[in-house]
Amino acid sequence: MIIQLKENISAQAEQGIVKVLETKKYKPMKVTTQDGAYIIAVGKTEIDIRKIGGLVGVDDIHRVSDAYKLVSKKWKINNTKIDLGDGVTIGAGEFGIMAGPCSIESEAQIESSIKHLVENGIKIMRGGVYKPRSSPYSFRGLGIDGLKIWYKLAKENGIKIITEVMMAEQIEEMLPYVDIFQVGARNSQNFNLLDALGKVDKPVMIKRGISGTMDELLQSAEYVFSNGNERILLCERGIRSYENAYRNTFDINAIAMLKEKTHLPVIADPSHGIGVRQFVEPVALAATMAGADGVIVEVHSIPEKAFSDGQQTLDYQQASSLFDKLSKTRELVRML
Amino acid sequence: MIIQLKENISAQAEQGIVKVLETKKYKPMKVTTQDGAYIIAVGKTEIDIRKIGGLVGVDDIHRVSDAYKLVSKKWKINNTKIDLGDGVTIGAGEFGIMAGPCSIESEAQIESSIKHLVENGIKIMRGGVYKPRSSPYSFRGLGIDGLKIWYKLAKENGIKIITEVMMAEQIEEMLPYVDIFQVGARNSQNFNLLDALGKVDKPVMIKRGISGTMDELLQSAEYVFSNGNERILLCERGIRSYENAYRNTFDINAIAMLKEKTHLPVIADPSHGIGVRQFVEPVALAATMAGADGVIVEVHSIPEKAFSDGQQTLDYQQASSLFDKLSKTRELVRML
Amino acid sequence: MIIQLKENISAQAEQGIVKVLETKKYKPMKVTTQDGAYIIAVGKTEIDIRKIGGLVGVDDIHRVSDAYKLVSKKWKINNTKIDLGDGVTIGAGEFGIMAGPCSIESEAQIESSIKHLVENGIKIMRGGVYKPRSSPYSFRGLGIDGLKIWYKLAKENGIKIITEVMMAEQIEEMLPYVDIFQVGARNSQNFNLLDALGKVDKPVMIKRGISGTMDELLQSAEYVFSNGNERILLCERGIRSYENAYRNTFDINAIAMLKEKTHLPVIADPSHGIGVRQFVEPVALAATMAGADGVIVEVHSIPEKAFSDGQQTLDYQQASSLFDKLSKTRELVRML
Amino acid sequence: MIIQLKENISAQAEQGIVKVLETKKYKPMKVTTQDGAYIIAVGKTEIDIRKIGGLVGVDDIHRVSDAYKLVSKKWKINNTKIDLGDGVTIGAGEFGIMAGPCSIESEAQIESSIKHLVENGIKIMRGGVYKPRSSPYSFRGLGIDGLKIWYKLAKENGIKIITEVMMAEQIEEMLPYVDIFQVGARNSQNFNLLDALGKVDKPVMIKRGISGTMDELLQSAEYVFSNGNERILLCERGIRSYENAYRNTFDINAIAMLKEKTHLPVIADPSHGIGVRQFVEPVALAATMAGADGVIVEVHSIPEKAFSDGQQTLDYQQASSLFDKLSKTRELVRML
Repeated sequence: MIIQLKENISAQAEQGIVKVLETKKYKPMKVTTQDGAYIIAVGKTEIDIRKIGGLVGVDDIHRVSDAYKLVSKKWKINNTKIDLGDGVTIGAGEFGIMAGPCSIESEAQIESSIKHLVENGIKIMRGGVYKPRSSPYSFRGLGIDGLKIWYKLAKENGIKIITEVMMAEQIEEMLPYVDIFQVGARNSQNFNLLDALGKVDKPVMIKRGISGTMDELLQSAEYVFSNGNERILLCERGIRSYENAYRNTFDINAIAMLKEKTHLPVIADPSHGIGVRQFVEPVALAATMAGADGVIVEVHSIPEKAFSDGQQTLDYQQASSLFDKLSKTRELVRML
Repeated sequence: MIIQLKENISAQAEQGIVKVLETKKYKPMKVTTQDGAYIIAVGKTEIDIRKIGGLVGVDDIHRVSDAYKLVSKKWKINNTKIDLGDGVTIGAGEFGIMAGPCSIESEAQIESSIKHLVENGIKIMRGGVYKPRSSPYSFRGLGIDGLKIWYKLAKENGIKIITEVMMAEQIEEMLPYVDIFQVGARNSQNFNLLDALGKVDKPVMIKRGISGTMDELLQSAEYVFSNGNERILLCERGIRSYENAYRNTFDINAIAMLKEKTHLPVIADPSHGIGVRQFVEPVALAATMAGADGVIVEVHSIPEKAFSDGQQTLDYQQASSLFDKLSKTRELVRML
Repeated sequence: MIIQLKENISAQAEQGIVKVLETKKYKPMKVTTQDGAYIIAVGKTEIDIRKIGGLVGVDDIHRVSDAYKLVSKKWKINNTKIDLGDGVTIGAGEFGIMAGPCSIESEAQIESSIKHLVENGIKIMRGGVYKPRSSPYSFRGLGIDGLKIWYKLAKENGIKIITEVMMAEQIEEMLPYVDIFQVGARNSQNFNLLDALGKVDKPVMIKRGISGTMDELLQSAEYVFSNGNERILLCERGIRSYENAYRNTFDINAIAMLKEKTHLPVIADPSHGIGVRQFVEPVALAATMAGADGVIVEVHSIPEKAFSDGQQTLDYQQASSLFDKLSKTRELVRML
Repeated sequence: MIIQLKENISAQAEQGIVKVLETKKYKPMKVTTQDGAYIIAVGKTEIDIRKIGGLVGVDDIHRVSDAYKLVSKKWKINNTKIDLGDGVTIGAGEFGIMAGPCSIESEAQIESSIKHLVENGIKIMRGGVYKPRSSPYSFRGLGIDGLKIWYKLAKENGIKIITEVMMAEQIEEMLPYVDIFQVGARNSQNFNLLDALGKVDKPVMIKRGISGTMDELLQSAEYVFSNGNERILLCERGIRSYENAYRNTFDINAIAMLKEKTHLPVIADPSHGIGVRQFVEPVALAATMAGADGVIVEVHSIPEKAFSDGQQTLDYQQASSLFDKLSKTRELVRML
């Protein structure tokens, strides 16, 4: 049960609500975010919600039977719009394209990439400075110094930054230079990291775990929300299946279904979702057609020379062509 | 290696080619189809294909390293068009929509369904008269009598029929009444059935196995082709994954990749691919955007009363809306 | 609901039971097997089973809520023993070892294999004469002629034969020469084949589908049983998972759980279950420890020269060592 | 390539080795652990390893082509024994049983559990004080205070403690009270946590990810080893498959194969591996038979009242019976 509190609720009224809930054997939990205050009450007892709805300080009340609550569309019917400032928004009708290299490699690479994005009217650049790598002997990214250089160049060109954060301790240092924190697939259930990102007033994009269910993804989002941060995006990036013809199996069903289950924007990652350059485009267009609120794609001036995963990376020409087709596809979606 | 033979090749010339191949330690296999004659030579020895290309009676020659040969695009670059007669075609630019109930239930149901299809300009009706059912206690379909009634009504209305065949013995009886034989997911590797369908001059649509790989699907198609029948369609109908939020996981990657690997038309089955009525539409549109040559969808006047699987079945209104959106999506695909 | 009928029930009494069931909105289905006669009543209405239990001709009555009925342990608590004659039995405490090559190749090979089995006291030989192969260009087995030669040699040495049947039409011809019909993983839901095998009075071993659930496997067995054949064995042979370090993922959980769900013997196939020769032994021993009623293993005098799948095949020495360890493991299981 | 350094190697000799490697285009990385010093050289150039073997300060040298190096059996043939002190060891022939509740709940619960373990001669107690939970609204454990109480009681009774650590910041505080740090399945690729645990001189048990490959698990272990900690155990805890009859699919193949790939001890977790109480025993015995070096099982005085996952938890009597059977099974394994 979600109890939305009135903006000016008194401490006394709040305690009153909590007391009633506890009497009814619920476990109440207060949640305060950028946008509002809520009490989440978990429990299984039958209750007449109208009675709680009538208490002083209660704005509205909703039953949500899902394991997740605040991220559910059962409660908040209007889709969430993520505002990155300077007119860059994602969700609730606004389509977001995030593009850039797998790893941030050098100042020259950043400049080249930004130039390509600006020419194509793309506003959000992706890139890793902390890279999760299966092997301890692989390149792990340029770290905070790389991020600072990137930020300076991005800022000058009106480009927003999305980049992966791997642990709670990195958040503070990264905070000034990041527009969206990305939680990688391997950290999708790193609950301490999610808790910590819930305490930050910057958008967070959570990737679905490598074999995560949609319910788990939504509950991971609930971690962030219930810690105080409503600005969340979800990302479908392919799941692990028995099929080895491609790296991951992009779950188009998830795009369609997440749009029904949650008010949060849903982003498609076709680069990881199939992992083969020549098929990134059809998967990206399909995801858009299925209702995705945006895509995140890997682009590099010379994919073969990319620090990692060049195999799934588009070159500039392929990317420009994709951006154009995405825009036409999105137009059709709006029309239908 | 695929050796295309000249139309008027002499028996002597043919024996000459076979002899050369055997000398080179190849296993030659003669394939004669509706459209041509080939020798498939399997083996691993290095050979100068130009030498074979120069033999009397050889029209053309191609190396194909895949496990499948005749269905590979490496050999036949032009996409195959399936011609059902009366101007109804699928593949090579022609989009095919197949719609109808899960099971054929009664004359009234057939009439109602045909009326709906005619009104929407849909030319191919799907429906099961032999139903594969997990339990021996479930309804197994109306059988050949149902098919005959269906055929009569379909014929009168210019509607083509696609229906599942479950065993080789059924083929002969069904043959006059069927426009496309469907091989179900559970029979995807029923090699005797595939052999038998290869000897028939009617199109065959093979569904991917419940956990079939693309390679297995293509090799199943190779069974049909190498027995003499080139008229094959492939169908992606969702694979089994760990995710239980929907019945199957529609593999959008497979659509994109099959279009690259084979010249055969690729059909999407969003009804089974997600198994939840309200999400059939986005999956169908996504598959079209990814390059599918057609879709097959379950439609029933009252889905809840369908003999089987009403949960994934569209009602007439939903179906009509989908047909319209498919056509607009297809238009966009052609433009891009 | 399973209604066991008395041996000498009159036609009138039987009709009486059917009528009562139909009145109660059940769908009754008569099943007559080698060992008994039953009426299976499917439906969801609440009923006082004691009332039916009191009808003339009823021997016993059981509610079985599973999708499968006659193969359920809820009905038949005592484990089924499969008797192959000459003192060779499997199930209900008797452990069965089936060993031999993937494919029957030649008379010399059969003789060599039989000699090895006899020396080790193994009574059941496996081998394929009809081979399901992904590619139409692969060797498909020696067929009925190979089976006849095999049978002659096996008979002379007191060896029983288990071999795969791929389609209903093969059954009649194979029948005199086969002790256990094997249904392969790819035919696990070939319902026509299962129907046909239900009409034969020879044991049938059904392999779990490549991604079959336990429920599907049990329902496939129900097909055979409900057509009249109670002599069924189930076989766990590994499932398809995302892990590629081995060919299949042997599902040890299934061994433990099937032993709880069904009275039928459960056989482990470690050769396919892991697909790597050196690990066949630990998987076989583990399956035995988990409660398997037998194992089926691939053995060849020179695995590298086997017609197919030598990679997962034991040589004679490895096999002999395994047989010895299986016997010791089985002894421990009996003691615990 | 792994270069084992002599104990008393001079800085100069070490630099000499590094220089040679760099000249040969290798990336050398120095690793110093409790037990030795190594240089790991990653690269693809052909090299005569005898030349490096002859350099001053080199003790031994090994090529290891796997992605993981130091945890590979190709380098270290002798199995690793984990010594927890007081004669409690695991690996290299010593079988370790870890038992206890899912969550540490109270002092009374700890006392009861320890009493049960002592009576059964079990030396290692498992239990969670930091619990990773899918939902933010679930109980997350008693934390460090619970651990301290547990430690006091365990110490008094000669019991060792294994418990999960969820983030690097917890390590320092937990260190004095923990005998084995457990990394949960969800943190199996939390590389920062693995890095941090590599800097600690306490054993670490890493659980395989929910859909982790064996290669990924071994590379996760490599993270710990290459940071300086050789005392690592691996744990198979079931993978996610399409089968829903049980919670996870215990991968018995992995037990057999990991024993071949690595010198580290391999522990089986049958409680999570199947997730159904009545089947924990057969899976535990099977894993032991397949070669596991130990098992970790959930036990609670009243499983139904356990804070979490009582469904997969044994009661005391079931656990005592299992311990006895494990010991007999282990005896057989030693004999074979």
